Amino acid sequence: MSLTIKLHIATHLNLNLNLHANKVSTSTNYNTKIRPKPIYNPNPLIFKAHTPTMHAVHSSSRLIKSSLIEPDGGALVDLVVPESERASKALKADSLPKVKLTQIDLEWVHVISEGWASPLRGFMREDEYLQSLHFNSLRIKDGSLVNMSLPIVLAIDEETKGRIGSSSNVGLVGPNGGLVGILQSIEIYKHHKEERIARTWGTTAPGLPYVEEVITPAGNWLVGGDLEVLTPIKYNDGLDNYRFSPQQLRQEFDRRQADAVFAFQLRNPVHNGHALLMNDTRKRLLEMGYKNPILLLHPLGGFTKADDVPLDVRMEQHSKVLEDGVLDPETTIVAIFPSPMHYAGPTEVQWHAKARINAGANFYIVGRDPAGMGHPTEKRDLYDPDHGKKVLSMAPGLEKLNILPFRVAAYDTVEKKMAFFDPSRAQDFLFISGTKMRTFARNGESPPDGFMCPGGWNVLAKYYESLQAEEPAKQQAVLST
Amino acid sequence: MSLTIKLHIATHLNLNLNLHANKVSTSTNYNTKIRPKPIYNPNPLIFKAHTPTMHAVHSSSRLIKSSLIEPDGGALVDLVVPESERASKALKADSLPKVKLTQIDLEWVHVISEGWASPLRGFMREDEYLQSLHFNSLRIKDGSLVNMSLPIVLAIDEETKGRIGSSSNVGLVGPNGGLVGILQSIEIYKHHKEERIARTWGTTAPGLPYVEEVITPAGNWLVGGDLEVLTPIKYNDGLDNYRFSPQQLRQEFDRRQADAVFAFQLRNPVHNGHALLMNDTRKRLLEMGYKNPILLLHPLGGFTKADDVPLDVRMEQHSKVLEDGVLDPETTIVAIFPSPMHYAGPTEVQWHAKARINAGANFYIVGRDPAGMGHPTEKRDLYDPDHGKKVLSMAPGLEKLNILPFRVAAYDTVEKKMAFFDPSRAQDFLFISGTKMRTFARNGESPPDGFMCPGGWNVLAKYYESLQAEEPAKQQAVLST
Repeated sequence: MSLTIKLHIATHLNLNLNLHANKVSTSTNYNTKIRPKPIYNPNPLIFKAHTPTMHAVHSSSRLIKSSLIEPDGGALVDLVVPESERASKALKADSLPKVKLTQIDLEWVHVISEGWASPLRGFMREDEYLQSLHFNSLRIKDGSLVNMSLPIVLAIDEETKGRIGSSSNVGLVGPNGGLVGILQSIEIYKHHKEERIARTWGTTAPGLPYVEEVITPAGNWLVGGDLEVLTPIKYNDGLDNYRFSPQQLRQEFDRRQADAVFAFQLRNPVHNGHALLMNDTRKRLLEMGYKNPILLLHPLGGFTKADDVPLDVRMEQHSKVLEDGVLDPETTIVAIFPSPMHYAGPTEVQWHAKARINAGANFYIVGRDPAGMGHPTEKRDLYDPDHGKKVLSMAPGLEKLNILPFRVAAYDTVEKKMAFFDPSRAQDFLFISGTKMRTFARNGESPPDGFMCPGGWNVLAKYYESLQAEEPAKQQAVLST
Repeated sequence: MSLTIKLHIATHLNLNLNLHANKVSTSTNYNTKIRPKPIYNPNPLIFKAHTPTMHAVHSSSRLIKSSLIEPDGGALVDLVVPESERASKALKADSLPKVKLTQIDLEWVHVISEGWASPLRGFMREDEYLQSLHFNSLRIKDGSLVNMSLPIVLAIDEETKGRIGSSSNVGLVGPNGGLVGILQSIEIYKHHKEERIARTWGTTAPGLPYVEEVITPAGNWLVGGDLEVLTPIKYNDGLDNYRFSPQQLRQEFDRRQADAVFAFQLRNPVHNGHALLMNDTRKRLLEMGYKNPILLLHPLGGFTKADDVPLDVRMEQHSKVLEDGVLDPETTIVAIFPSPMHYAGPTEVQWHAKARINAGANFYIVGRDPAGMGHPTEKRDLYDPDHGKKVLSMAPGLEKLNILPFRVAAYDTVEKKMAFFDPSRAQDFLFISGTKMRTFARNGESPPDGFMCPGGWNVLAKYYESLQAEEPAKQQAVLST
């Protein structure tokens, strides 16, 4: 059974990005750059682009560029075929040997095509794969390094490799059978799974979610090449309006005249500790002299493990947090980061940060144990909780990004609110883990006052209630849907 | 039982490096630099420095510098305490909490103290460890990266950590109980063994030699800090005369007026395929316009796995190869690289190359599957045989080193000699693996004519004969000695 909790967010007004009317040269003076003048709704959750306009955005990567931070490689990659060429490209794709994509492959196609992984222009060839695996970075033409900590690869099996034969291009077919795009000037090389897993996760223990879901069932070959996508990737799950491309985000930051953008990556519901942290970060940025810091609240929208809260529930929860005024809609943009989740700790947090550079964020908040999880076979965290921020602060290619380490927030039982942990009165603080939070929700209990805004908590309580309604024995299966 | 095959190499003449007589400023013009004028023996195997002179060399790191390639970080690290300060330092060391070193820890002390790992000045602190593990490189003060692919760390157990307490310095005690040096401004951090192994080797399969010998039995903490060594590390195994420091090698290259130095790392006997390759490299360098390319034949002298040929046997074999004229003594320097072996393939080959930069080599020869071995639990190579040279050619911090990929040599059954493999007549070529070579030697058979010079082969045959003389059931134990 698939759980669907509808999001009841009215989309009163639409942002109409008429880029063609605002064409500027690549040598634009960014201080006086021409901005699209959309009709604007102050609720950041209602920042919607028409589908026809999406294409205009996609196909005009060099028109407008945020001045806050350069995309990796200098120009945002955009691999969506211009509308005028789609018919001929589709014909070409159809004539080629086909590679069938899984849902997670398609999420990567989405990620690559919109330039989150700029300057990567397709699934990695072996040179890129090896640099990613060994150095967490790629050398670009000018000799400098860009960060690239996760191998972004497409696996094929022996049979598919045989069908491809000596063809230099392949057509990509989505999980539903439709043509998605083309991979050109391909290179096929061995998928050394054990090595990939060990070097990416720092363990080969069984039970790593991405490994079990993606790598173990995948073929023993990888195919790299230059990607072209026939149409922008859509999910039709009611959430596409939150899926802003890096270019759309950059345009929105410009439109809001942001002079700092701080990104907050999350895959969990927002509690008041998170909110405290985000609001505190804004305060710090204002104290640093920035006039208009904008928060990019950027939940991860791709594959997550079975016991994480599903995306639709999280998006509804996030919307309540803004409705309840815990975060300020005027200075917050909520959007979905389309990447799948690896749970690869210090290796993955670099990817999370790097992708946000491409989306125009020049500040990145990092907390305890980012992208971490429990060790799959031992009773301990898989990663040292401090390694994520240490590795991130030293990572090649991320020098231009300002890393903002978390202060630890916990529930202050005296003040009855989430507050920054004060070691001088440690006994007053309560750490409420995700597991504890889930236990409250499952048991129909309320968390302590001030842990989460009531609207947000209700969304979670309702979700866990719906899980409880299922036969307990099937709960795992339900969570996987 | 320990196998000792004596090396019968006469040391007729000694090289007397009287550096104090040739003191030059750090701003020396390298084109007209003053060189020591040693008494020289044309047999490169007989390049020996007196023990008293060794210290002079060690304590004068800024006197003479090769112009061919800069050491990483700009200056060669030298951590041997000047003679005048030894007594006081020894007293200080004795007053500190002690850390007991294993034989392999001591090999690393040797490596670090002589500057092979420049700019590293001691066992890694956590920041260095994490950079090495994740990025295979270290960022230095000027913002640039130096290569550093292997974590060079010192493990301690809980009990030792307790004894150190809050002391900022510790004394290092050798395996024989003698004081070796001091580690200063220490930092103690967790030894996450599984992660270290997975990220270094790309596998956690049981049976990796360095893991079983070093990591598994080691403590769960690592201690990093700045190293000072009381006296140069010596082994008193009859081979110390081959253990030239990077500084001594640089001086010798200068003395020989080398305009190119090409390093050949090996841990196996030299056969005529290797020799062909080395001689061909020299020819290529001459064709490129170099007038005096010098070969650094640089066998690894630290820990090796049980079934590798022991160092003393290899050194005798190498000396025969030069005596038999297979390599030209006039343009060859044979010296021991004191590092232990990790068998970590693409990760380790970077270390092998980086250390040779510090020793003054500006060309590095890399072959098929460098630092590789069979997978410990599966019937396949642990690494893709092509990954080593690919990774090496892309590694951050190695840009200044010229990588010379191997051409594959094999036994040409028509020409009856080792020759570069010609795919157009593949059937004429015989690949003689290390296993096959060992089988010949064990069975008392001769390899095909032209595979190895007779003098070199006799050394091996004698070694394997001595193994055969042991009870077969105990052979494994004997190999481990």
